[in-house]
Amino acid sequence: MKKILIMHGPNLNLLGEREPGIYGDTNFDQVNLHLVNYAAALGMEAEIFQSNHEGALIDKIHEARKEFAGIILNAGAYTHYSYAISDAIKAVKIPVIEVHISNIFARDEFRSKSVIAPVCAGSISGFGLLSYDLAVTALAEMTKQNEDEGGVS
Amino acid sequence: MKKILIMHGPNLNLLGEREPGIYGDTNFDQVNLHLVNYAAALGMEAEIFQSNHEGALIDKIHEARKEFAGIILNAGAYTHYSYAISDAIKAVKIPVIEVHISNIFARDEFRSKSVIAPVCAGSISGFGLLSYDLAVTALAEMTKQNEDEGGVS
Amino acid sequence: MKKILIMHGPNLNLLGEREPGIYGDTNFDQVNLHLVNYAAALGMEAEIFQSNHEGALIDKIHEARKEFAGIILNAGAYTHYSYAISDAIKAVKIPVIEVHISNIFARDEFRSKSVIAPVCAGSISGFGLLSYDLAVTALAEMTKQNEDEGGVS
Amino acid sequence: MKKILIMHGPNLNLLGEREPGIYGDTNFDQVNLHLVNYAAALGMEAEIFQSNHEGALIDKIHEARKEFAGIILNAGAYTHYSYAISDAIKAVKIPVIEVHISNIFARDEFRSKSVIAPVCAGSISGFGLLSYDLAVTALAEMTKQNEDEGGVS
Amino acid sequence: MKKILIMHGPNLNLLGEREPGIYGDTNFDQVNLHLVNYAAALGMEAEIFQSNHEGALIDKIHEARKEFAGIILNAGAYTHYSYAISDAIKAVKIPVIEVHISNIFARDEFRSKSVIAPVCAGSISGFGLLSYDLAVTALAEMTKQNEDEGGVS
Amino acid sequence: MKKILIMHGPNLNLLGEREPGIYGDTNFDQVNLHLVNYAAALGMEAEIFQSNHEGALIDKIHEARKEFAGIILNAGAYTHYSYAISDAIKAVKIPVIEVHISNIFARDEFRSKSVIAPVCAGSISGFGLLSYDLAVTALAEMTKQNEDEGGVS
Amino acid sequence: MKKILIMHGPNLNLLGEREPGIYGDTNFDQVNLHLVNYAAALGMEAEIFQSNHEGALIDKIHEARKEFAGIILNAGAYTHYSYAISDAIKAVKIPVIEVHISNIFARDEFRSKSVIAPVCAGSISGFGLLSYDLAVTALAEMTKQNEDEGGVS
Amino acid sequence: MKKILIMHGPNLNLLGEREPGIYGDTNFDQVNLHLVNYAAALGMEAEIFQSNHEGALIDKIHEARKEFAGIILNAGAYTHYSYAISDAIKAVKIPVIEVHISNIFARDEFRSKSVIAPVCAGSISGFGLLSYDLAVTALAEMTKQNEDEGGVS
Amino acid sequence: MKKILIMHGPNLNLLGEREPGIYGDTNFDQVNLHLVNYAAALGMEAEIFQSNHEGALIDKIHEARKEFAGIILNAGAYTHYSYAISDAIKAVKIPVIEVHISNIFARDEFRSKSVIAPVCAGSISGFGLLSYDLAVTALAEMTKQNEDEGGVS
Amino acid sequence: MKKILIMHGPNLNLLGEREPGIYGDTNFDQVNLHLVNYAAALGMEAEIFQSNHEGALIDKIHEARKEFAGIILNAGAYTHYSYAISDAIKAVKIPVIEVHISNIFARDEFRSKSVIAPVCAGSISGFGLLSYDLAVTALAEMTKQNEDEGGVS
Amino acid sequence: MKKILIMHGPNLNLLGEREPGIYGDTNFDQVNLHLVNYAAALGMEAEIFQSNHEGALIDKIHEARKEFAGIILNAGAYTHYSYAISDAIKAVKIPVIEVHISNIFARDEFRSKSVIAPVCAGSISGFGLLSYDLAVTALAEMTKQNEDEGGVS
Amino acid sequence: MKKILIMHGPNLNLLGEREPGIYGDTNFDQVNLHLVNYAAALGMEAEIFQSNHEGALIDKIHEARKEFAGIILNAGAYTHYSYAISDAIKAVKIPVIEVHISNIFARDEFRSKSVIAPVCAGSISGFGLLSYDLAVTALAEMTKQNEDEGGVS
Repeated sequence: MKKILIMHGPNLNLLGEREPGIYGDTNFDQVNLHLVNYAAALGMEAEIFQSNHEGALIDKIHEARKEFAGIILNAGAYTHYSYAISDAIKAVKIPVIEVHISNIFARDEFRSKSVIAPVCAGSISGFGLLSYDLAVTALAEMTKQNEDEGGVS
Repeated sequence: MKKILIMHGPNLNLLGEREPGIYGDTNFDQVNLHLVNYAAALGMEAEIFQSNHEGALIDKIHEARKEFAGIILNAGAYTHYSYAISDAIKAVKIPVIEVHISNIFARDEFRSKSVIAPVCAGSISGFGLLSYDLAVTALAEMTKQNEDEGGVS
Repeated sequence: MKKILIMHGPNLNLLGEREPGIYGDTNFDQVNLHLVNYAAALGMEAEIFQSNHEGALIDKIHEARKEFAGIILNAGAYTHYSYAISDAIKAVKIPVIEVHISNIFARDEFRSKSVIAPVCAGSISGFGLLSYDLAVTALAEMTKQNEDEGGVS
Repeated sequence: MKKILIMHGPNLNLLGEREPGIYGDTNFDQVNLHLVNYAAALGMEAEIFQSNHEGALIDKIHEARKEFAGIILNAGAYTHYSYAISDAIKAVKIPVIEVHISNIFARDEFRSKSVIAPVCAGSISGFGLLSYDLAVTALAEMTKQNEDEGGVS
Repeated sequence: MKKILIMHGPNLNLLGEREPGIYGDTNFDQVNLHLVNYAAALGMEAEIFQSNHEGALIDKIHEARKEFAGIILNAGAYTHYSYAISDAIKAVKIPVIEVHISNIFARDEFRSKSVIAPVCAGSISGFGLLSYDLAVTALAEMTKQNEDEGGVS
Repeated sequence: MKKILIMHGPNLNLLGEREPGIYGDTNFDQVNLHLVNYAAALGMEAEIFQSNHEGALIDKIHEARKEFAGIILNAGAYTHYSYAISDAIKAVKIPVIEVHISNIFARDEFRSKSVIAPVCAGSISGFGLLSYDLAVTALAEMTKQNEDEGGVS
Repeated sequence: MKKILIMHGPNLNLLGEREPGIYGDTNFDQVNLHLVNYAAALGMEAEIFQSNHEGALIDKIHEARKEFAGIILNAGAYTHYSYAISDAIKAVKIPVIEVHISNIFARDEFRSKSVIAPVCAGSISGFGLLSYDLAVTALAEMTKQNEDEGGVS
Repeated sequence: MKKILIMHGPNLNLLGEREPGIYGDTNFDQVNLHLVNYAAALGMEAEIFQSNHEGALIDKIHEARKEFAGIILNAGAYTHYSYAISDAIKAVKIPVIEVHISNIFARDEFRSKSVIAPVCAGSISGFGLLSYDLAVTALAEMTKQNEDEGGVS
Repeated sequence: MKKILIMHGPNLNLLGEREPGIYGDTNFDQVNLHLVNYAAALGMEAEIFQSNHEGALIDKIHEARKEFAGIILNAGAYTHYSYAISDAIKAVKIPVIEVHISNIFARDEFRSKSVIAPVCAGSISGFGLLSYDLAVTALAEMTKQNEDEGGVS
Repeated sequence: MKKILIMHGPNLNLLGEREPGIYGDTNFDQVNLHLVNYAAALGMEAEIFQSNHEGALIDKIHEARKEFAGIILNAGAYTHYSYAISDAIKAVKIPVIEVHISNIFARDEFRSKSVIAPVCAGSISGFGLLSYDLAVTALAEMTKQNEDEGGVS
Repeated sequence: MKKILIMHGPNLNLLGEREPGIYGDTNFDQVNLHLVNYAAALGMEAEIFQSNHEGALIDKIHEARKEFAGIILNAGAYTHYSYAISDAIKAVKIPVIEVHISNIFARDEFRSKSVIAPVCAGSISGFGLLSYDLAVTALAEMTKQNEDEGGVS
Repeated sequence: MKKILIMHGPNLNLLGEREPGIYGDTNFDQVNLHLVNYAAALGMEAEIFQSNHEGALIDKIHEARKEFAGIILNAGAYTHYSYAISDAIKAVKIPVIEVHISNIFARDEFRSKSVIAPVCAGSISGFGLLSYDLAVTALAEMTKQNEDEGGVS
């Protein structure tokens, strides 16, 4: 069974409690439970990883390169300045999909720039928790394409 | 049956022929045929609209506000400077999803800024034609949520 | 009877329906009816023109140069980037007055720059629909001055 | 009888003598006499105030908040950097209208930014001395609206 | 006989009448008549196209890709912000030559940047109407080179 | 016989050897031989001058002002920062035409700004060595116009 | 008894009345009465000075240099552009403490820069009126340190 | 007894040894001992935490949200770029006070911008170690206010 | 006897006491006494004026326009932002010479820009108090030239 | 025997596997083995340290200040934004040499700025793995100079 | 007899002929003759040097450091970008005075920045040829001060 | 015997005399003598070249391309703006190593940008005269690698 890694960056462990007006009130464990099930329904095994440490996120991306078919990454605020995470993504060969719960272009000025976007396979933002589901779907499609290489989309 | 509008901005009519290294070689009609079918499979009727005219895109967004449940918009190069389209999106109440085939953050500097993103419900870019499918899926989910208002994502 | 042209740019056709907190809830037809009457009371015949197309606005400015004594222009979002409309204004000899319903300096950063202002005879913004009345009054005065050339103001 | 305050900022006392190509050759006293009469014709009593001192302009705005129905302010060069005057306007509750004789957007680069505009009720610029008349008219209308609250504009 | 397309963007239809100090007083029809003759003398059939509509210019560039050997484009003010026209040029395979009557580097600041130049085969500006003649000559040479591929220049 | 000066700035002496992918493989002497002949065919005597020294280019422009009808100048990298050469051009009264082999707008960011363009009679770039031929043609036309002052272009 | 000077810049005289959501509703006289008492409790005599005039603030800083042990300065909007006040602070030898009621970093962009901060002994902002108390405490400590020169903090 | 958390960011563990001209020569343990005592004298129990790890600082802020009445944070160099710490502060509901030993506005350009300031309850900088004492005092006052809600400051 | 006005802006009254390393230790009265004598030796009567008030400086410039042959102005820190003083200089017809004691280009970044320089007859900076003497000499020469109009310089 | 510390920042552990076109295909362990031997040949004992954690790099720099004669640091992407590492370097007294394998000035824009360079003893970049050897040589020389203080270089 | 060096940079050899509206119509030789006499009257021997070559100006500054008491330098357009000349000035110990004929702050934007000013003893600009006389006077005073060290200025 | 060229740019001829605090007091001839010997010890013949002329440096780089195995270049202040030298380096095929005596990143802002770095084989700065030795070593290694192509570094 194909494995995917879902990574949550800094402050996402407080989901449900932190600024619910922006991030909703579903808590972190519920979100992850849902995602594991959602991935399973698409025939993939999802592992969840969260850290507030930039270095730990880099370490995990490195480890993932052998074991996982792809990564879904919500890098939180590191999105906007961590060139080190950006380099880690470039250093591994598996696809990484950037995900954001909120519309990062409609908030603080500094959030409108992602230093990670240019090295990701694709970016999804603004759909609330649905952003993750779409990324899981995308990863399922992208890795399937690698297998049978066909169809229009 | 719920209706959605899929809008293609300038130069997208040349899909398949234009810079195939970036945009792929599936042609414009094939893409649209696929999208109509894909939407139908999710229980939605998709109408396709393409124009190279900024004004025509605005006119269509206005018209759509009464008839459609949501819009999927690839505004092409207008993405980067058409505040008029941005205002049109803000003026209508139905959700608009921004879509890009290529990763706009990994190309020319000017493409990394979207003046439309801040007023869209969400943004998807970089997945090739799969970007559109994800947007159709998102619209199906978002408008379903409006109906039964439940579930985690 | 002296003729004046009142031009509305993109999205202004949705007046009354679009963001009423900013633009008020008087609808587009009511506004125009009022303006035609207001101009008539000052002895001028007002023609109304609205388009979401940058090119159509330019075409109309060109046509107007022979027939009208002056133009009142609310260029909507084109105000902020249409150097083509700016060039059109410079190309005709009749006075053009820039009008904005909202205070464009108190909203989004991009709205604080008008590329049209430098070539207009004058600018009025922030008075709600009263902005148009003031512009009509101004045009009446300016074209009167051309006739009798006297008085302090 | 409703009272309004017409404030002239730095260097405007030299009107008629200073750069007549830009500001005209009507002198300062003539302008003010005209404005007092113009306001009277609209049923308002206009007081004139001029100072080259930023602090004196702020003091006067403060004093005016109890006594006047509104202020017409040509802040001269302070327009472009006096955040202190801007704060004074925000601190009082009566409407302040920004006025400029010349088209400030068509001259030196530094003049195209007004730090006062965002906190004013409205802005009028470029009509020569007519700018003041329009502002008086606007103030008459705005304060009338507060009384009977009706009509389209 | 080889066909070339000469495209004039916004406001160029007013040539001869608009700012004659900058653009000269030869009128639009005279210019085009001259260009058709000039091209004919070089063995090419020139078609003339003018529009103030950004979208119409894009439509025409698309159509031209099958029928014409090359395009001479004076995009007027669109030169400075129309990434949509720029994308259209990149999307077609025939050579496009950028032409300007005036020296765009010696006027307003905003005119010194061309978003079209990077995707054109070459740029010519500042020679008055002679700019067009040089572009016609260049196109004759460039397309001849494609045929016999020889000589120093 | 009318004399023109063709000036080559820094590194152009290595033409044919330097980055042939950008500058072609015709060597410097061949280019100049061609240009002398090309000018002769148009009834003009061309003198060639090359230097890597900013000061030598300025000295030569000064000397040329008495003897030559015009200058064709490829200032190489000095194009982007030599205000001293720019001042030299402004100081002489004969027309100077700016020429570039490559499309300077499609390469490094710093190459997109020419400090020389605003003071030149016209600019031609991107046509390979053909750029020079066009400039010679332009100079022939421009100086002819000074003589008989007629015709459309 | 040690004397300290508490200076309030432009618009602070309206405290309690001006934007109470940001500045609170305690009025100016109450604030000053509290501060005089608070300072007295720490063994210092506080003089209060308020002016909307930049020059008057400078004059007062100059006068204070002989008589006072230190200054607490809320320069209001002058904080953001008065290099003249900044120079005055540098010109006197007594310590000046910058105080702000609101968090100047969390409001308008222009408020995030203080041209006075670099020359002050220290800065305190965002604590409401408590900011002043902290500054009084700091001044008590700082001037005490000058006397007995000891202790950890 | 009310608990407060005093957090020291990167390189502050070297206090007393590191750049004593700027940071003084009191060593880290002495500073903390003093602060614990100082807080105790105000009836509060202070816990000390230091880390050079951005992630560890975020983890600690998260943990603190349940147990502590407030946080005093000297984020060291992370002050200038850690949007992740900024987000952590926004995510918890207890007040966080920003503290700096040196005057960050009077040193390197990059130090004059704090990305943390906008989300803190208040900021104190430049008073040497006294900055911490003032912050402890402020926290004592702020949390007291929450209890009895009275008095002027 | 020709009269000249020597104006000193903010903080210059502290000359001799303020930052002597930069401004020297000659006190303000000594400087002025010297200047009056120096001017007298050149046949001119010098009046001295100092104010820390921007408005007072403007008032004085206005008054001077009738009575004085020219002004020597050291505007202190107002040099860097007072567009109001700049406008006052432009509004009067007598020559104004900008003077600085220190080399304003070799100190803080903000001091390298003078908003007054563009409207002055000339600028002298960096010579210590000698700067004033040179300005007096210049004014003597400039006003002499107006009289006899001759000589090389 | 003199000890030196060779520090590798984020993503350098993937050397040999990561973007071999830029970083070469020698793997991380081979590089370190070589460096230990190379240092030994120069009479120095080299310790290797790698971490993807900014905080761990800071911790190690702190520890090193007692034990090592100097540090060779390739900070990877932290080079471009870690002011915290920069402060750590400034806080210790031993020399730190900045090393980069690739030419950081010839890649992405963001890589051309090093926030670490200003506080390092020297910088070496672009020589591939040879960069490290040169740094080891430099450290050997620099620490030798401290001992015998002689010779030209 | 004390020797001074008067250096003229690029294009100044064309004085009298070049843009006489800005630079006057006195020719280069007349200017120099006047300056030699003017200096002689002040007891100094002036040598004149002009070059359009940046390197030649540097060479001359180097040579001058042994032989001359000071330099008067009008660096022409090199003023705005020649950090090499700026370094040369810093490398020699004799005073260098910057001179400009025109008001460099009132012309093109690029001319308002002098990279030479920060390292010069003083700057004089805008007085026409009188600027040179003032510089000669200044040099006479400055070098006299070095001898007898007295007087107010 | 392999030949290398060591090039010194503007003002380096004054080494030992110029700003010894930054550049040391070893004089220019001693430095070169040392370098010739140092290179000889590594089996290479070093030629020394110094010029203050940008053009002469370019000429020399051109000449060197046939005769030398590589170049060591300290371009002095030309480092920061000479795109012409940068182009010369790109035009020749031999490796060029950028060298700086001082740490260019720790001085004036303008020195932190090298326009030459992006086209050099590598850069070394901040080691004093040792920088040159390291560059000679590097060149020895790099050209050796070309011969036997082996070893780890």
